[in-house]
Amino acid sequence: MGYRLGGRYIEGLEHLGSGLAFAEKLSGGLRGARVFSDLTPEEATLLAGFLDVFRVKNGAAFIFEGDDGSFMVVVLSGQVNVFKQFDGPNPKLVASVGTGKTLGEMSMIDGEPRFATCIAAEDTTFAMLDRKGFLQIMEQRPALASKILLHLVVLLNQRLRQASAKLLEVMESGERSARRLQQPA
Amino acid sequence: MGYRLGGRYIEGLEHLGSGLAFAEKLSGGLRGARVFSDLTPEEATLLAGFLDVFRVKNGAAFIFEGDDGSFMVVVLSGQVNVFKQFDGPNPKLVASVGTGKTLGEMSMIDGEPRFATCIAAEDTTFAMLDRKGFLQIMEQRPALASKILLHLVVLLNQRLRQASAKLLEVMESGERSARRLQQPA
Repeated sequence: MGYRLGGRYIEGLEHLGSGLAFAEKLSGGLRGARVFSDLTPEEATLLAGFLDVFRVKNGAAFIFEGDDGSFMVVVLSGQVNVFKQFDGPNPKLVASVGTGKTLGEMSMIDGEPRFATCIAAEDTTFAMLDRKGFLQIMEQRPALASKILLHLVVLLNQRLRQASAKLLEVMESGERSARRLQQPA
Repeated sequence: MGYRLGGRYIEGLEHLGSGLAFAEKLSGGLRGARVFSDLTPEEATLLAGFLDVFRVKNGAAFIFEGDDGSFMVVVLSGQVNVFKQFDGPNPKLVASVGTGKTLGEMSMIDGEPRFATCIAAEDTTFAMLDRKGFLQIMEQRPALASKILLHLVVLLNQRLRQASAKLLEVMESGERSARRLQQPA
């Protein structure tokens, strides 16, 4: 059992069908995700029509660090571990996310390389939105698109502020250490 | 001469009028800004109707670090210096921006405190969009709103990737220094 997603054949991935087929059921799951949290039930049902639903087996990777990204997922059930390659020989676990979390939204929008690798930590179902689907939403349902994008902007703003604050902190503490080292003993 | 903007009375600020009054003229200036660069001339003219245009005197501050933000500006002519308060006693110049650059878009969207202070480095004109105006665009012109938001997402993504890469770099070099210090001489 396998399926092609994001230009790769992924062993352990099963396509359950278009979101259209179970729009009603999906609506609640989507609205549990922060990016979609202020959609009305009607909007979430509309959105579902642009998605595909997958099941992935425990242990299977379905997003790969460095790949050109073209889709995002919303975890509907299960658990996903996120690994990033640093200096050392082995990737490090940087996050573990469950139901209602989204993954890959940055690359879905801008197509830049994936920041990390995502591996199912148990049997997991997710809804998938790709760039093509998102551009269709922008064209056919611009009010829905702008609501989703506004949420993405707020989310990215928060992450950027956190990263900037952390960067300032690390750099300032580095400068302080350097100054201490430069002072005559 | 002064005017109230973002909850402050700003000496040296002059309100030239609603963007509606000079929509045709504004259209080109707006499309020179990256966030608005893929708007059609018609869309830029539409957008202009939601903006206000200001002139600010050389030396006047019009965005203040720490303030709750509610508007963004597009520089139409002139130059703006951006200062941020760090550890030391005086704010540091972190950027100097001219025609076609945008300032304050993050806080316009999420209302979080301003990251830095903006001071006109010469007599400067700018177009201003506040959150109220932006929410009106979302309601009345969702296709226009989603185009602008998509650009903001791409821009924020880039900044976030840069900040994350820089953070990793600084942290890894910090770890290497720490390891060197821990090694027996």
